[in-house]
Amino acid sequence: MESAVVDVFDAKCPSRAVMEHLSSRWGVLIQIMLLREGTMRFSELRRAIGGVSEKMLAQTLQALERDGIVRRVVHPVIPPHVDYSLTDLGGDAAKAVNALFELIDNRWDEFEKAQMSYDERKK
Amino acid sequence: MESAVVDVFDAKCPSRAVMEHLSSRWGVLIQIMLLREGTMRFSELRRAIGGVSEKMLAQTLQALERDGIVRRVVHPVIPPHVDYSLTDLGGDAAKAVNALFELIDNRWDEFEKAQMSYDERKK
Repeated sequence: MESAVVDVFDAKCPSRAVMEHLSSRWGVLIQIMLLREGTMRFSELRRAIGGVSEKMLAQTLQALERDGIVRRVVHPVIPPHVDYSLTDLGGDAAKAVNALFELIDNRWDEFEKAQMSYDERKK
Repeated sequence: MESAVVDVFDAKCPSRAVMEHLSSRWGVLIQIMLLREGTMRFSELRRAIGGVSEKMLAQTLQALERDGIVRRVVHPVIPPHVDYSLTDLGGDAAKAVNALFELIDNRWDEFEKAQMSYDERKK
């Protein structure tokens, strides 16, 4: 598909906000989790992602839902039960995010070596 | 390569910081720019990336340099001339980041439709 509509380098373009949701600290981790696990409840996501507050998780999920990345399904049972999963669009985005995650995981020794070498030079 | 060393879901794991540099608002845009242009000077990057302050650009470049993503070359001329480019590791990271950027660009209509539908439901 051709595109000359969005420009992520333009601070005022709405695509910038989507890029920021997709690549935000918590956005990234939510996507990887949902890609791996398929469907998760709020409390499960909260437990799986170290350091995220309830408020930040809720805000990030809401932003991702609005962008069409995350699907939120409310089951009308007692007590209420809410599921989160990736949409088709979200699954494709999550695959790109996951590639970055795999890179860090697979090449961690290179990152660590670079950091040590940088710190040595700056001593 | 096998890896059981890093866990980006653990808030205290150093891989979390690298993930955050790579996927930060400015980190993402710097990588895409350097992937496209090869080598750029500070002032060129500043001009190309809308809304970034001199301080934020400098801090982000420094974090990316320490992680081994960005290579900083100082040319000993007058006036001093500093070039930024991607390392091999950085090029691979930038390709993953760029895939996310292409997705937003190519499927912008889907993002926009999701946002409009969400806003309509919340009215």
